[in-house]
Amino acid sequence: MTPAQTALLDSLAATLGPKGIVTDAERIAPWLVDWRRRFHGAAPALLAPASTAEVSAVVAAAAAHGVPLVPQGGNSSMVGGATPPADGSALILSLRRMTAIRRLDAAANLAVAEAGVILSDLHEAALAAGRRFPLTLGAKGHATVGGLVSTNAGGTQVLRFGSMRGLVAGLEVVLADGSVHDGLAPLKKDNRGYDLTQLLIGAEGTLGIVTAATLRLAPEPATRTTAWAAVRDPAAALALLRRCQAGSDALESFEILPQETLAAVLAYVPGARAPVATTAAWHLLIEHSDPAGAALTERWLGEALADGLIADATIATSAAQAADFWRLRESISDAERALGPASQHDLSVPVDTMPRFMIEAAAACEARFPGCRASGFGHLGDGNVHFHVRAAPGTDPARWYAEEVPVVTRFVDDLVIAAGGSIAAEHGIGQMKRDELERTSSPARLAALRAVKAAMDPLGILNPGKLVTLAPRRAGQ
Amino acid sequence: MTPAQTALLDSLAATLGPKGIVTDAERIAPWLVDWRRRFHGAAPALLAPASTAEVSAVVAAAAAHGVPLVPQGGNSSMVGGATPPADGSALILSLRRMTAIRRLDAAANLAVAEAGVILSDLHEAALAAGRRFPLTLGAKGHATVGGLVSTNAGGTQVLRFGSMRGLVAGLEVVLADGSVHDGLAPLKKDNRGYDLTQLLIGAEGTLGIVTAATLRLAPEPATRTTAWAAVRDPAAALALLRRCQAGSDALESFEILPQETLAAVLAYVPGARAPVATTAAWHLLIEHSDPAGAALTERWLGEALADGLIADATIATSAAQAADFWRLRESISDAERALGPASQHDLSVPVDTMPRFMIEAAAACEARFPGCRASGFGHLGDGNVHFHVRAAPGTDPARWYAEEVPVVTRFVDDLVIAAGGSIAAEHGIGQMKRDELERTSSPARLAALRAVKAAMDPLGILNPGKLVTLAPRRAGQ
Repeated sequence: MTPAQTALLDSLAATLGPKGIVTDAERIAPWLVDWRRRFHGAAPALLAPASTAEVSAVVAAAAAHGVPLVPQGGNSSMVGGATPPADGSALILSLRRMTAIRRLDAAANLAVAEAGVILSDLHEAALAAGRRFPLTLGAKGHATVGGLVSTNAGGTQVLRFGSMRGLVAGLEVVLADGSVHDGLAPLKKDNRGYDLTQLLIGAEGTLGIVTAATLRLAPEPATRTTAWAAVRDPAAALALLRRCQAGSDALESFEILPQETLAAVLAYVPGARAPVATTAAWHLLIEHSDPAGAALTERWLGEALADGLIADATIATSAAQAADFWRLRESISDAERALGPASQHDLSVPVDTMPRFMIEAAAACEARFPGCRASGFGHLGDGNVHFHVRAAPGTDPARWYAEEVPVVTRFVDDLVIAAGGSIAAEHGIGQMKRDELERTSSPARLAALRAVKAAMDPLGILNPGKLVTLAPRRAGQ
Repeated sequence: MTPAQTALLDSLAATLGPKGIVTDAERIAPWLVDWRRRFHGAAPALLAPASTAEVSAVVAAAAAHGVPLVPQGGNSSMVGGATPPADGSALILSLRRMTAIRRLDAAANLAVAEAGVILSDLHEAALAAGRRFPLTLGAKGHATVGGLVSTNAGGTQVLRFGSMRGLVAGLEVVLADGSVHDGLAPLKKDNRGYDLTQLLIGAEGTLGIVTAATLRLAPEPATRTTAWAAVRDPAAALALLRRCQAGSDALESFEILPQETLAAVLAYVPGARAPVATTAAWHLLIEHSDPAGAALTERWLGEALADGLIADATIATSAAQAADFWRLRESISDAERALGPASQHDLSVPVDTMPRFMIEAAAACEARFPGCRASGFGHLGDGNVHFHVRAAPGTDPARWYAEEVPVVTRFVDDLVIAAGGSIAAEHGIGQMKRDELERTSSPARLAALRAVKAAMDPLGILNPGKLVTLAPRRAGQ
C-alpha cells in the first residue's frame, strides 16, 4: 500500500466504519478479475460506502490524496470496465452496499433505486407493484443499477423501450471533487444547460460516481406473444421486422440467429429441441405485447409465409414454451464458448445495413482468416450484432487470444467503421476496446472525449485507464 | 468592425462568396433583435455558409482570429438565445442557407435534415412520404432544425414522442476548432464513450454548431381524436391523465388551462366559441391517435363524468372542429399579451407535483405582489407550466419590466426550486435566464456546466454570454 493509500484509509476509517473498508486480500480477490477471467487487477483495499454521503466522503478524500478509484457494481462488465489496474495504484469503490429502492411510485411509473440494487431485485420490486422495469439481460442476477446506468446497458427489450439512456429519468451523482449533483427529480422537460444525466449515462464511471437513479417503469402487459420463425436470410427478416413495426407499437424483441448457432445451442443444452422442424439458414425469435395477442402474430406470420418471406413458424402456446424459446437464445454465449476459442465482437450498424453486414462481414473474415468460422447473431431491431470469429480447429487458445484476436479485432472493427457502425454497441469500451476506440475514432470525436474527461475529472482519479486516455498512449503504457 | 473581424471576413471571402458574407446594416438589422423585441444586439457582419465545409471554415477562422460567433436559425428564441451581444464583438453565424433534406427514408422512419430546414417544411416533407415528424410548436414556420436541436425544443406532442432529445438519432456538428464530428449514422446502440449527440442537444450553440441531424419519423396515424373537457381542478385532471395513460400508449396531448385564460382567448380571437357550455374552473384539451378512436375517448370521458372527475366534455366531430380547439390553445400567448404586461415563466415540476404547484404558486404570487394576477397553463403530461404573473392594472410597462419582473422572477424561480423543478422547461436559458441559472443551481451543477463549456469551447467563441459564464459574473459585466 502506498503512503497516500494508507493516509486515505486512515482519513475514512471513522466515516466508513469496519464494514466500509476491506483490506483482507482473500475478500478482495474475487473483485480483482472480471467474470470472463480476461482481465486481472490488483487493489490493496476495497471501499464499500453505504450512503451517498459516504460515497461523497470517499471521493473527496481520494481527490485530496490523489488516489484513483475503480467503481464496481456486479462486476459483470464484458470489457474489463470494473477491473482495477494491475499496478495496485487504485482502490475499488464498491457500490454494492447501497441497495435501497428509495421510492417506487406505480401511478407515476417511476422508481428511485440506489446504485447497488441488483437488476433482478428491481424486476421483482416492480412486479410486486404491478409494473415492470423493461430492461433485461443475461447478467440480471449480478448487474447493478449503477453499472447498468454507467454502461448504458441494453439487452433484449431495447426495441420497444430503448437502452438505459431511455429509461433513466434522473441521476444522483458524486462528482470528482466529492460534490453531490442531485438530479433525481423526474422532470420530463428540463433545459437548464448541458444534460449532466445524459453525460453520465454510459460514461463507465470515468466522469462521476452514480449513487442513485430515477428509473421509468412500464405497466406489466396483459398479454405477451412469443414466436419462432425460420427465415431464408437477414434481408427477409428485416422485411418482416418492418411489417411488424408498422403493425404494432408493442413489438418488444426481434432476435436473429444463424442455423449453425442454433445447432450449437441444441447440442449444448440438454433436452433442447428446435422450435420448428424446417431447416433454414436463419431463425427469428419475435415477441410482442400488443393487446391483439397471438391473432396479430398469426396474421404477420401467415402473410409472411404466403409471401415467401419465411419458411416456417410457430407461436408458443404456453409461457413454458415461450421460456423454452428464450432459453435457446440465452444459451448462445455458453454454447458458442463450448465450440472453442473465438474473437467476440459487440457491434452495431444502422438497422437497414445489418442484413448485408452480417453476410458480408462473415464472408470477409473467413476469406481473410482461413480455417476460421465467422457468424453473427443479435438484435435485428437495434442493428446490434454479436459477431464471433471462431479459431480454426486445433488452434492453441493461448496463441489465439494473444496473437490472433487483436488482428481479427482490428479487421472486424475496420469493417464496422466502413459500414458507418459502432465498435461498441451495448458492452461499452472499458479497457478491452480503449485502444481500438482511439484507433478508429475521428480526431474530432477523440479530442471531444478527452476534453470532457479532463474537464470532469481533472485529477484522473475516476476509473483510470478505462474508456479514454487523456493523451495518446505511448508503447508499453 | 475590429481589425480581427476585418481579417476574419477577408480570410473567408473566397470560401463563402458574396452570398455568404452580409455587411449591409439594413439586411443585418432584423437579426439583431429577438422576436419578442426584448433583447437588442449588434453585429458588423452576418456569415451565411451554405455547407458543412463552409461552416467548418468559418469556425476555424473565428478560432484563429479570436472572433466570437452567435449561431442563428429562425431567430425565434424565447430567451434571447440567438441575439448577439450589444457590444458588436461577435458576428452572426446564420445556418439558414443549409436547407437540404439530405435523405428521407420512410421505411426506416428517418430523415437527415440540415440545420436551416424550417420545421413546417420538414413536416411537409415527412407527410409527402406518409410519415410525420412528431414535434410541433407555435413557431413552426420559423424555427429551424438546428435551433430545435440546440434548444431541445418541446411543444405540444412531447407526451408521446418526447422532446427533440428523443427524436434525434444522430448529429453532425462543427466543434470549436472547426473540426467536424460526423455522428449522423442512426445507431440505436452505440456505447463509444460520452454521448456527444446528447451533449450537444440543448447546448444552445455554446459547445458546437449543429449542421445536420438525423431525425426519427413516425407513421402518420390513421385516426386522431380531439376532445375538450371542463374540469374542477388540476388534481382531477391528473387523475384523468393517469387513466388515459393506462388505457393507451397513443395519448399525444394533454393540455390544461384555467377558465380565465380561456375567457381571455375567447375575447381575443374573433368568432371563437367555448367548446363546452359548462363553466368550470379549468379546461383540458386531450388528443390521442389510438386506433380505437373516438370510442376510446367516449369511454374515458363517460367514466370521468360518472365519477365526477370532469364536469362536461365534447369530442370534436370533424378535423375543422379539432382545429378550432387547437386554435384556442395556440392563441393563449397572444391573448394574454393583450391583457397587459406580464412576467412569463416557462417552468417544469414533476408531473405529480404540477396540480398543487399551479394552485399554490399562483396564490403565493398574488399574496406577495398585491394587485397582480397569476395563473398557469401548459402541458400537464410533461409537468410543464407556462406561468404568467400579470402586472396590476395601471402599472407602467417600462417600470414593470425593468423593476418588477426581476423581483417576480426570483420569487417564482425560488418556488420552482423548492418544488424540485426546473426554471427552464422547454425554452432554455439563453441570456434571459443565465443569471437565474447561476443563482439557483447547486455549486456541483454549476461547476460541471462550466467545466464542460471550458473544455469544449476553450476560446469562448461559441455563442458568448449565453447559458453559462465561465466564472461568476462581476457587477456590470
